[in-house]
Formats: sequence, C-alpha cells, structure tokens
Amino acid sequence: MTAIELAILWLSWRQPSILSSRDNQATPCSRGLTLLALKWCGETAWVAEPERTRMLELYHHGSSVCAAKVRLALDEKGLEWQGHYVDVLKGDQFSKDYLKINPKALVPALKHNGKIVTESTLICEYLDEVFPDIPLKPVSAFEKVQMRLWTKAVDEVIHPICGEITFASCHRHIVRRLPPDDLQRFLASTPSLSVTPEWHDRKKELVNKGFDAPGIDVKFRIYDGYLQKMEETLAERRWLAGDTFSLADIGMVPYVNRLAMMSMSDMWEKSRPRVTQWFETVKSRPSFHSALIKWCPEDLTNDLREFGAQSWPEVKRMLRK
Amino acid sequence: MTAIELAILWLSWRQPSILSSRDNQATPCSRGLTLLALKWCGETAWVAEPERTRMLELYHHGSSVCAAKVRLALDEKGLEWQGHYVDVLKGDQFSKDYLKINPKALVPALKHNGKIVTESTLICEYLDEVFPDIPLKPVSAFEKVQMRLWTKAVDEVIHPICGEITFASCHRHIVRRLPPDDLQRFLASTPSLSVTPEWHDRKKELVNKGFDAPGIDVKFRIYDGYLQKMEETLAERRWLAGDTFSLADIGMVPYVNRLAMMSMSDMWEKSRPRVTQWFETVKSRPSFHSALIKWCPEDLTNDLREFGAQSWPEVKRMLRK
Repeated sequence: MTAIELAILWLSWRQPSILSSRDNQATPCSRGLTLLALKWCGETAWVAEPERTRMLELYHHGSSVCAAKVRLALDEKGLEWQGHYVDVLKGDQFSKDYLKINPKALVPALKHNGKIVTESTLICEYLDEVFPDIPLKPVSAFEKVQMRLWTKAVDEVIHPICGEITFASCHRHIVRRLPPDDLQRFLASTPSLSVTPEWHDRKKELVNKGFDAPGIDVKFRIYDGYLQKMEETLAERRWLAGDTFSLADIGMVPYVNRLAMMSMSDMWEKSRPRVTQWFETVKSRPSFHSALIKWCPEDLTNDLREFGAQSWPEVKRMLRK
Repeated sequence: MTAIELAILWLSWRQPSILSSRDNQATPCSRGLTLLALKWCGETAWVAEPERTRMLELYHHGSSVCAAKVRLALDEKGLEWQGHYVDVLKGDQFSKDYLKINPKALVPALKHNGKIVTESTLICEYLDEVFPDIPLKPVSAFEKVQMRLWTKAVDEVIHPICGEITFASCHRHIVRRLPPDDLQRFLASTPSLSVTPEWHDRKKELVNKGFDAPGIDVKFRIYDGYLQKMEETLAERRWLAGDTFSLADIGMVPYVNRLAMMSMSDMWEKSRPRVTQWFETVKSRPSFHSALIKWCPEDLTNDLREFGAQSWPEVKRMLRK
C-alpha cells in the first residue's frame, strides 16, 4: 500500500466528507485537511514510492550540452543511473532504434519506469519532482519564476545560439575533415524540426561560410549579453535564481563551460568578476568533473580548444562592434 | 509513510494554522515545523498565505495570444484581477513606463505583491502554484512533462510561427494602411530580442513580401503539423496532457483560435475530428468568451476574418505542397 492510499484511507475513516467536498461550509480544520489532501495527491511534492525507486536510464553523449545538464542534475541529486552512449558525432542518433526513443534525434532522453522523458529542461524538472530529497528548485514561487526565466532563455535563445557559435568556431573545421559524400550525408540528416525549424539549413550555411554566415556576429553578441545578464543577476543574489544552487545554474553551466572549452573565457575573466567567481565555485563542485568534464571525448576537447583559440581573435572583433 | 509525513498529517488535523503560516507571531517551534513542512514539500505546493491573497494586476491587450492565455488561466481558476490595457496596436508597449515593467516590450506582465512576473507560460505556472485550489496541472510527474512539452512547443515553435503567419496573412495588410513614416517607425521599434532574435528583420520582410517571404510555406506546414500532433494526442487522452483540462490546453487555445479567427478552421474541421471536438468543448467553457473573445477589438476581429479569408486559398495551396 502506498503512502497516498494510506492517507486517503485514513482520511476516509476520520473525515469522510473531506474527500468529497471543497465547499465553504467546511470547517477550518477540514479545509486544512482538504488542502493537505489535495496538495498531497495533486502536487509535485508527492510521488508514489515506485516512481522513486526504479532504475534511471540515460541516453546521452559526452559532447552534448543538454546531456551534460541532465548528468549534472543527476549527480547533484545523488541519483544513480545507467547510461546508453549515443555517439552523436558518428550519427547514432539517426538510427532507427534511437528515433523510436526520440524522433527529434536529440540526446539526452531519460527512461524511467518504462516511460521516456525527452527535453533536458523537462527531464531536470521531472527528476526534481520525482526525487525531491535534494531540491534543485528554490522554495518561493517568485524565485521559481526567476529559475525558469533562465532555463527558458537557455532553451529558446542560448542553446540554439550555442549550436551556431560552436559550429562557426570549431565544428565546421571538424566535419570538413569528412570525405565530401559523408559530409553531405551528415548535413542532410538533420531532421527539419531539430533544435529550431531553421537549423537544417543554418547548419549547412555555417559549415560552408563560417564567420561569413550572415548574422553570426549578432549571435555572439546575444550570447555575450547573457553573460552580462548573469553578472547583473549575481550582483543581487548568490546563485542565478536565489541563494541556493538551482536548475538555473545547472542550465547555464554547460553553456559557460562551452566557451571555456573553446578558449574563450576572456569573455568574462577580464571584465565580469561575479561570473568568474560563479564559474570558479561551479568548477569546485564534484559534479563538474564527474558529470561534465570527464565525459567530453578527448579528441573533441582538443579540437574545441585549438579551433576555438584560432577563432578567438575574430570573435573578439565581432564582440567589439 | 515516514515519521515526518505522519507528523505533518497529524499537524494538519490538530493544528492546521501552523502549516498555513509563516508570520512572525508563530512560535519558534511552529516556525521550525513550518520550515520542516516546507522542506518536506520542497515544492511548488507550498505557498504562504499572504502570497495567495493580494491583488493581481495584469498588463494585457485584446489581440495578444499570450495575454489571452493568462486571462484564460485566471478565469479558469476563478481569480479576480485588475487590468491595465496596453494597446500594442498603438505602440503603448514601447512607452518608457511599460519598458520598465517588461524591457522586452511584450504583453502580458503580471504584478503581484509588488513583484513583476513576465512570460505568459511562467505567469500561468506561477498562478497555479500560488493559487492551487483549482489546479491546472496534471497530478503525475510524467503527465506534467507531457503538459510542459506542449507549453514549451508553444513558446519555442508555435508562438513565433503564429506571429509570422498572422503577419503574412493579415497584419501586413493592416499595418500597410499606416502613412509611410509611421510604418517605418512601427517596423523600427521592435526590440532586437523581441519574440526571437530574428523577429525584428523577419517582421519587415513579412510586411514587405507577404507570402513571397522565403520559408513562410514551411512555417504554415509546421503549424499544421502541431494540429496533427494534437489529433494524435487526443486519440490517447481526453485533454492534451491527460484526463483533465490543463495548462497544455490553455496554451493551445489562443493559437487554434487565431486560425479560427483568420477563417482557417478548415485546417481541422474537415480532417481532424478530435481537434474539432476539443475546440468545440473549449468554446463551450465560459472562459472562452469572458477571457478571450470579448477582449479582441472589433476592428481587428473583422480584419482578421476578412484578410484571413482572402489569404486562405494561398495558405491551402502551401499546405498541400
């Protein structure tokens, strides 16, 4: 018998009217109980025991910023998981089997109790609800809004731009090592709804034109603008959504780290002391190595560092405009 | 059931006031217990009494799909609110005063307890957390993911596309009635981060080229694809995220209604019986009139209907491709 069933049984014995009434005639006491029961049954706090215990399986890859985000959340919450490595650099995400798991051909995807959860931000919210013991959301409703403003900005603006600036700075040089036919196949295999509706065509443009692709300078400046927004936010609070480390911070870590891996940490180290301090503190948490750094393939780490360093002077010029 | 959970159940029965108070008159013991309860709930469920009671002020406009979404949530939850009408068709959103409330120059914005909450999806989540009595989220964590997959799709894909197809079908004809100088001012005043980083330029292109703007056909097909996704989802569940009406449905209502207002309901009425039934049921809810229809300015209602009807044959042709 689950706790919910036990609670309902108890309520039905002591206060049978409560379970069928929300009306104003209820006594304060019974209204308190009703609210509790509603909250108990109806809210994120409460999760039946089986949901908490069964195995978590994560489909992920070492170079994916979104997969890193979910591994960070799992690690910070002390949750064990079993991994399925989907090598997105080899195209594993386009396999028939994986497309059944995520038709968008994106990692990560979580399997829990036989059900698939996709979209890294929603996976993190799901994990924090099902396993509430080490919460990664602030307590107040208003601070939760601040948290979700960050995770929403990550999903809507920062993530798509991260793809663009990584392709323009580094990945274009990596994929252009492929034989021409393989490169064409690679470019053709992006599903039309992947990342954004425009990503299929934009990726091609970025691979072909690099920093000459129209609008790439604006994208770098928007990304840089979010570092400035972090700097201003961290002047008011210890972490991005309040005084505790939350999914807002977890959301930003892989995107700031991507710049660091691309030898572009001058974007904050010389001018944004609070972002610098934030990132130093993040790096000192055990999760930074175990959930993020150790998963990035060595070849890719080297390529990001070297192509990124080559790209930096041009990026710096674009940021000054 | 753990001892803590039992203790809280017992408290709710014997001393419900303890659990609904964070005020300074509470004894250290009861404050300790309250904190414990908060920690236990760790979650959106728990909101202090003052947060629930103070006045809600909504900055909104009758033509905004996002404002309609928040009015629907307020109405469905039976919450009273005071409105500040920001006439986005006259450019009120660019006023100095409003830019202090929302620097993105978008409606809606909610003011509650002296704090501003922006982004319609986050306003809805906030309202549902602070006023949990008529919940608009499904009970299970997995169904909440399904709900947020819809609200996320609305924010990331459906909303920006709705802007594009509305401009291409109707708004371009409306704004081109302006004297040339006013039109230029209108087109120049979109902040660069409004809706999407591309919206500033794209809006100009849509006003100038209409259905000849590159890629507009793809956008109509993606929007149509979400109607198909609704049809498939509603084959499995009564509402979009489960068996209860939720923020997923509220999220989609204004976007399906926009097509209906643009005389484009053939997109589901002839081919998608479940979407047709869903929309009929939605229309029969009192909130549909009081929160949505009654707010749309009459001129605009007429323009959307007439320009939409003129555009429909071309839209139909694009959808067939």
